[in-house]
Formats: sequence, C-alpha cells, structure tokens
Amino acid sequence: MSNGEAIKWKLVETAKPVDAFIDGILRPRRPEVLYEASRHLILAGGKRLRPFLTVKACEAVGGSPGDAVPFASALEMLHNFTLVHDDVMDNDPVRRGAPTVHTKWGVPIAIAAGDLLFAKVFEAMTTHAPEGVSAKRVKSCVEIATRATIELCEGQVLDVSFPRTMDVSEDDYISMVGGKTSALFRACAEVGATVGRGKARQVRALGRFAWDAGIAFQLIDDYLGATADEKTLGKPVGNDLREGKKTLIIIHALRKARPRQRDAILSVLGNASASREAIDGVKTILRDIGSTDYALKKAEKYTSSAKKYLGTIPDNAAKKDLLDLIEYFTHRQY
Amino acid sequence: MSNGEAIKWKLVETAKPVDAFIDGILRPRRPEVLYEASRHLILAGGKRLRPFLTVKACEAVGGSPGDAVPFASALEMLHNFTLVHDDVMDNDPVRRGAPTVHTKWGVPIAIAAGDLLFAKVFEAMTTHAPEGVSAKRVKSCVEIATRATIELCEGQVLDVSFPRTMDVSEDDYISMVGGKTSALFRACAEVGATVGRGKARQVRALGRFAWDAGIAFQLIDDYLGATADEKTLGKPVGNDLREGKKTLIIIHALRKARPRQRDAILSVLGNASASREAIDGVKTILRDIGSTDYALKKAEKYTSSAKKYLGTIPDNAAKKDLLDLIEYFTHRQY
Repeated sequence: MSNGEAIKWKLVETAKPVDAFIDGILRPRRPEVLYEASRHLILAGGKRLRPFLTVKACEAVGGSPGDAVPFASALEMLHNFTLVHDDVMDNDPVRRGAPTVHTKWGVPIAIAAGDLLFAKVFEAMTTHAPEGVSAKRVKSCVEIATRATIELCEGQVLDVSFPRTMDVSEDDYISMVGGKTSALFRACAEVGATVGRGKARQVRALGRFAWDAGIAFQLIDDYLGATADEKTLGKPVGNDLREGKKTLIIIHALRKARPRQRDAILSVLGNASASREAIDGVKTILRDIGSTDYALKKAEKYTSSAKKYLGTIPDNAAKKDLLDLIEYFTHRQY
Repeated sequence: MSNGEAIKWKLVETAKPVDAFIDGILRPRRPEVLYEASRHLILAGGKRLRPFLTVKACEAVGGSPGDAVPFASALEMLHNFTLVHDDVMDNDPVRRGAPTVHTKWGVPIAIAAGDLLFAKVFEAMTTHAPEGVSAKRVKSCVEIATRATIELCEGQVLDVSFPRTMDVSEDDYISMVGGKTSALFRACAEVGATVGRGKARQVRALGRFAWDAGIAFQLIDDYLGATADEKTLGKPVGNDLREGKKTLIIIHALRKARPRQRDAILSVLGNASASREAIDGVKTILRDIGSTDYALKKAEKYTSSAKKYLGTIPDNAAKKDLLDLIEYFTHRQY
C-alpha cells in the first residue's frame, strides 16, 4: 500500500465514528424537512479532513481518539454549516455532485438548516463532551471554534466582494485563504490538542501546522484548477477562471503578463460563457508566464513551513499521520 | 411614577451596560460592511427584554448584575441573529422602523451578518466571561443558549410552513410560540440564574417563569394585532391577518364561526390586498365570536402560571422587577 493509499484508508477509518456521531445528533425529528436539509450535504460526501486533523492532533499529544470524536464531528458540522450558507450566498447549484440545500429546499430552509448545524456544533461540544474532558477545556474549545467562525464569516464576505475588486494583492489573497480555509484547519488542530490535554505550546504548534497546511491545500487546489484535466479535477476545467476567482496564479499573471497576454486573461476572467478554446489559451499563458509554477512553489513553501511546527510534538503514529496527510494532499495528482 | 413607567425606566437602565458591551464586541473592523450589517438591527432599537430577564434572574438568585452583562448581551445578539435571518426567510422589508439587513445590503451579507452575530454570542459567553463565573457555569450557559437556538430554528421552520397548513390546532400554535419566543425567554432566565450561582431548582423555576411569560407575551401581541388601532400598535392594523398568521384568535374563530363569518375571515386571511373595510369587518367578527377575549384569558392564565413559579425565589428587588415586567407587558395598552 502506497503512502497515498494508506492515508486515504486512514481518512475513511477516522471518519467512521465521526459519521456515526453526526448521524445520531442530526437524527430527523419534527420538523423533518429541517433535519433532512441539515443532513443532506454531510451525507453527500466530503473527505473529512477536518475531523482527521482534530482526532490526530488529540492523539499526537497523547489523548484518546474517542474523546475527540464529538469535537471532530462538531468541526465537520461547522464546516458544512459554512458551505450551506456560502452556497446560498454564491448561488451555487451543485456541491459534492448533489444539488445544494437551497436548490433542493429553497433559500429559507437552507438558511435555517445552516443555523441548525451551527447550533449543533456547540451541542456536540458541551452536551456530548466526554466526562474526561474538563469544563475548562470545553470552554477553550468553544472559544477556538467561535474565533474560527468569525474568521470564516469575514473571509466569506471578503471573498464575495473580491471579484468586483480589481486590485487584489498577494497578501490580500493569502489572508482571504487564511479566513476561508486555514482558520478552520487551525481550529481543528487546536481543539484536538486541547481535548487531548496538550500543553499550551503544543496546542499552538499544531494550530500553526494546520494553518500553513490550509494555505498549501488551497494553493494546490488553485494550481490543479489551472492545470489539471476534467477527469483529475472532478469538475469542469476553467471554472475558477469563468467565476473570476482572483487566485494567486491570476494575481501573479496579471502582474507579469505582457499587454496582449493580459487582455487574453481579462477576456476570460469572470466571463461565464468563455469558450473552451479561450480557457485553454489562458491556461497556456499562465504556464508560460510561470504563474502556475509560482503557486506550486509557494504551496511547497507553506508545506515545509507547516512540517517544521511539528518539531515540538513527540514522534508518534498520529504525528506521522499528520505529516503523511499534508504530503498526500500537496502531491496529489501531479 | 406608575409601575409601567418604573419598569420602562428599569429596562432602559439595564440596557445601558448591555448596549455598551454589544457596541464594543461589534466594533467595526475589516470587512466593515459585515460589521455595519451586524450592528444595524441592534442599533435600530428593541426593548431589551431578554437582557433584562437575564440580568434580573442573576440578581434574583443573589448574583452580581455585572457578571451577567456579557451573557445578557450574548442573548440579545442571539435574538437579533434570528431576526436578521427570519427577515430574509420571510422577505420582510422593514423592522423596528428601519430597512431590514437584506433590504439594505442584500441577502448574502444578511446571511453572513446573522452568522457573525451568532458566533459573537459564544465569544461573549467564553472570551468575555467574568473571572468569577466558573468554566462549568460557562459550559452550562453555552448549552442552554444552544438548546434555545435549536428550538428557535425548529420554530421558525414550523412558522414558515404554517400559513400553508390549513389545519393548525391550539396545541400546535402554543408549541410554535414556545419555539419562537419562550425558548429564548427561558434561556435568558436560566443563563442569568446560572451565572448568579443559583441552585438547580432556582434555575429551573426561573426558566419556567420565563417560558410561560413568553407565551403570555406572544398572546398579548396577537390580541393587540387584532384589536388595537395603528397608533397603539406602531404598525399597520391587520398585518397579522393579511400575512395569514394563524394566531390563537384565528384558530379559535375558525372553529366557532358560522359559515358566513368563516367565509369573511378566510377572504381576508393571507390576502395581502385585503381592504381596510374588510379587515375592520373581520376584527368585529373576531370580537363577536369571543375569540379576542379567549386569547386574552389564555394570556392571563399563562401570566398567573408564570408568577407561581417564582415561589421558590426569595423576595427581593429583582424578583419584584420580574413580576412588574410581566404585569407591565400583559397589561400594556388596553
């Protein structure tokens, strides 16, 4: 079994008790439509990266993985709550190959379903906290999850207003990615380490690891969006371009492009009806200018920075799993 | 100063530190639009009944009112979070005399603003918990607020689907009101009593007081909606009827009405363009059948039941304030 296969298997194994917990806490009750809508996206799939980070951070500092399950489930519900609301805000019809919640049940139910998921985050962390986890640690976990949610809200609003803002700097982009992905990654690692009774410096170190891992993860996503074919990507090629997403690749390219290249990029960016040929032309330009390589190098920089933070964590199986995970997702499919 | 004036003055006094706290925790930062949208409705007004319940319940069990302020503020933000999202769901253009958040900034920002308010509830309860409030009590408060939010979500979805459901029973209505109003009232009293180090039975008693007070409060609101004039009401007369709200009054009337009266009621109910004359005709029918009196009697029943629960609380100024409050709002304007 390759490292990649091993880590995929471990993701699935770690997800099992988490999925069982979520299935229980979202068991349909009256009004059924609310619970069905809340379960819909979580049941439609997802890699369960966040629960994995939570459980493994708990184990890495010597905690019992079972103690982390309600918290890992809480953070997966938190992730899904933001996705349900983001899909309404972005008016996206499909996610994980299934119709989005508002497409299936309408905007009012989608808003309520997201709110219910958000409330269930805190129910999982308090009512379902294992006895061995002190109230003081529970309070810290609530605080960590809350801080991440605030960053997610801020990140989503920045994201919604990005396509209209022409002048986006690299720092803006990294901070937007921080809000949208890393904030929750960090919260997962910090919550896991807190539940596992980690020392304050271990909680911090695992949080920083996860923060940088989140940036690398998003940069690789952007890289694949600009280089991979449809089969590898699992979604139409060029979506990021057609949606006008200001990824690091685009930011770099617009800075480096000659006038004609710049015109070609701008003619496709945010143009929902851009042809496949125009998209392919721009992909070639992005490669020629070196923008895709630039993003890849940046991702590798964040990956190696992330790894360094784990220096304060003793060598153990869970730490190795965390290192394998980041290795796996920064080197997937290329 | 009459009892009514005294209690109004006390509401204003109790609101001051709460408003200052909320102003601080929602102080604009980047992205400004998100924070402006989150502050908008809270700054537009509101009676601050929920913070009052929280602070007075804390004092009634011997706690310090200052300890309750972050929690009282949290619960007012929780209330406003549900209003912002409910207004999107119900597509209401105006609240508290100001344009609703989605009317002013659009649906995406309104969703994010509600989510931010919800997250701030837990920031207030954890990061800003006074040192004297133990982590165990903070954990209980988070649990109480979460349970109320879940009931609010369920109540809102039931409410959204009510106008379409012709067959609504009295019990359905009371349970809907429970979810929409009493759940949060109860949470306020329970959180306040918890922060004030109340005994478990005092926390429960104050919660039950607030639950019944919430039902009475809503029944009186319905009563005024069907009997008062525009000046007393502060909003157009007949709104409840035009929106097709199945209040207890309507439920009673549809059960008791003769065929011609029933037809008149149904011709107005949920008919946005019903004339002022038709509305006035139906108001007369509701009075003649005895439906408005029926709701008023029911409200008084809940008021006196609420009061009884305070038997386990020692006589003190805060307990008197709670009794005055319920007296005031069940006897306002008639």
